[in-house]
Amino acid sequence: MPPSDRHRLIEDRIAKLGIDLGASKPGGAYAPVIEDRGLAQVSGMVPSLDGKVVAIGRVGAELTLEQAQHAAMISTLRCLSALRDHLGDLGRIRRVVKMTVYIQSAPGFVQLSEVSNGASETLNTILAPFGQHARTSVGVFALPRDAVLELDMAVAVDPPRRGSWLRS
Amino acid sequence: MPPSDRHRLIEDRIAKLGIDLGASKPGGAYAPVIEDRGLAQVSGMVPSLDGKVVAIGRVGAELTLEQAQHAAMISTLRCLSALRDHLGDLGRIRRVVKMTVYIQSAPGFVQLSEVSNGASETLNTILAPFGQHARTSVGVFALPRDAVLELDMAVAVDPPRRGSWLRS
Amino acid sequence: MPPSDRHRLIEDRIAKLGIDLGASKPGGAYAPVIEDRGLAQVSGMVPSLDGKVVAIGRVGAELTLEQAQHAAMISTLRCLSALRDHLGDLGRIRRVVKMTVYIQSAPGFVQLSEVSNGASETLNTILAPFGQHARTSVGVFALPRDAVLELDMAVAVDPPRRGSWLRS
Repeated sequence: MPPSDRHRLIEDRIAKLGIDLGASKPGGAYAPVIEDRGLAQVSGMVPSLDGKVVAIGRVGAELTLEQAQHAAMISTLRCLSALRDHLGDLGRIRRVVKMTVYIQSAPGFVQLSEVSNGASETLNTILAPFGQHARTSVGVFALPRDAVLELDMAVAVDPPRRGSWLRS
Repeated sequence: MPPSDRHRLIEDRIAKLGIDLGASKPGGAYAPVIEDRGLAQVSGMVPSLDGKVVAIGRVGAELTLEQAQHAAMISTLRCLSALRDHLGDLGRIRRVVKMTVYIQSAPGFVQLSEVSNGASETLNTILAPFGQHARTSVGVFALPRDAVLELDMAVAVDPPRRGSWLRS
Repeated sequence: MPPSDRHRLIEDRIAKLGIDLGASKPGGAYAPVIEDRGLAQVSGMVPSLDGKVVAIGRVGAELTLEQAQHAAMISTLRCLSALRDHLGDLGRIRRVVKMTVYIQSAPGFVQLSEVSNGASETLNTILAPFGQHARTSVGVFALPRDAVLELDMAVAVDPPRRGSWLRS
């Protein structure tokens, strides 16, 4: 598949989810994405829409597994949105090489992999057939702004296409 | 040392530990290892044998330091096993560039580096003289399936050897 | 700017902070820095001076936000110090591609990004105009030696300069 078709396919799949992330900016003195020699590092993203965290508290207490999985999907979309802003073209994504998912969990809640599947299945669907990634899931004590989860990614990227000046 | 000898040396050292990991599969919608342009990312591995977590609970409460160190060795072997399945040949490992160890610890337990040494010493022994690695150890609130620890690795790898078609 | 000037500029900025880190060594069986093909991984660093952790406890309980931010600056300087020992020359730093900050926080404390800004602003100042980095901040349950925080970095580096034999 030519890169331009791949770009369009990815954008179509994102559009089908019907989620409007709104505006976003980093929560501190750092960059959303840093790219160097073919590897892009995406900063930890909490599930926010238009800058407001939408899933607050601990999964297993204030939030259900299903709500946390939905939050994982939103954080994944925010990573892809940051990559689009940075790369100019989602067709440049070769592969998400690693995702780390930090989950604010209630005492006794151990279905951490199940929460992360909400992120993995989003990646698998949107980036198919190259959605496979390595992953680590951990339950943490606290997260910025009391978000239920935060996730980051390392992404292998291809060079910009020649003649590509469009930003999606 | 030629790569084929190195491969054999590493396998011999693993065999000497006498630990049978049994079958294993990822606990979710992700891949155990992703390799891209010479860097392999290994997913977080809990200490399991034949798919069953063998060290459950918090170090400093349900488990002793020694039990947690043993669990760290098993997780390290699982990472190497996943690398063998993926790379086909452990002689392709150039260097483990980074290991992160997440430890489910009891309140007041701060010997986290000591727990991680169980993993580092295993790597140092098996991969000598190239076992040196960077490391981060943190105490976390919860881990998948209540495992006492989980660890992941980033590994620099060499290209497949020409004429190498054997999978160990 | 020639690399040698950049090296001097970075050293001058560090000197101006007036902090003497003293001697340091890894807290376990691992290396402070591993470099492979242009990427250097720096091990997790707690805020210590002369081998002694100087910020112990939880931010939001035993320590204030300001104290934790100062600790973040010290950990950042320790990462740079480890890089200098390893690279021989801080002018070889191209870019810090990713920083992860683990923070030992009190229940209810959620200003984790604010703590990490203590590290990010140090990097931004010392490495300007190339101080931008991706970042993840998480609140953890425990850290080695009860340190208030720990941070690690992945750093893109340039090859050694020809004719450079000076170690700073």
